Amino acid sequence: MYIDHIGIAVKDLEAAIETYEKLLQTPCYKREVVESQNVETAFLQTGESKVELLGATDPESVINKFIEKKGEGMHHVAFEVDDIQAEIKRLKSEGFTLLSDSPKPGADQKQIVFLHPKSSNGVLVELCQTVKQ
Amino acid sequence: MYIDHIGIAVKDLEAAIETYEKLLQTPCYKREVVESQNVETAFLQTGESKVELLGATDPESVINKFIEKKGEGMHHVAFEVDDIQAEIKRLKSEGFTLLSDSPKPGADQKQIVFLHPKSSNGVLVELCQTVKQ
Repeated sequence: MYIDHIGIAVKDLEAAIETYEKLLQTPCYKREVVESQNVETAFLQTGESKVELLGATDPESVINKFIEKKGEGMHHVAFEVDDIQAEIKRLKSEGFTLLSDSPKPGADQKQIVFLHPKSSNGVLVELCQTVKQ
Repeated sequence: MYIDHIGIAVKDLEAAIETYEKLLQTPCYKREVVESQNVETAFLQTGESKVELLGATDPESVINKFIEKKGEGMHHVAFEVDDIQAEIKRLKSEGFTLLSDSPKPGADQKQIVFLHPKSSNGVLVELCQTVKQ
């Protein structure tokens, strides 16, 4: 298990990309719209992990709602796992609450699932597994 | 540059250690009090990065104030750099606002400096450099 990425909710994706390209001294290497979430994502690599900037594509987006409530900032942390189905089973048996019982398609060719933040000290934790092509 | 750690503000450090040991399937390998900040830290390794749990040791701790305002959750992200002095100079010239002009001692044998969250989309960004022993 390792940190695949941290997700950062931003108001202006273009400006945020420019900021994080300067900060991390690396170009945004991919952008991807996740239609089901009304989110556009932008990725920057730093070591083995990525920074995923998250911008709303619609006023009803979860990202807009997050920013209205908490302001811009860190939205979630994602840990890459080898076998997401096994992890879901393991974590449920350990008493963690998951937001769904089965993984769903996310950005970046991943299957993903979220833990309820109440299970992890207020942190929205994503588990993800890269889908073999 | 890579993610050295993510810092998570928690109310009950003992309980949080237990939670994250289960979640990440790795033991907390170090605890350290940072007297100047009234914080106790606990570290868990995951890949090349760490999860740093942050508990207050005093009601006046910055961690208590953070939790009062925002609740438990992600507090900061720290990027390891090779030369923190050069990074401070570079980022200032790029227009970033830093919380201090020179690095200070932090936990885990590091010299650290923080960027103002307004510079980085609401994210409290730490830069850190491991001090050679």
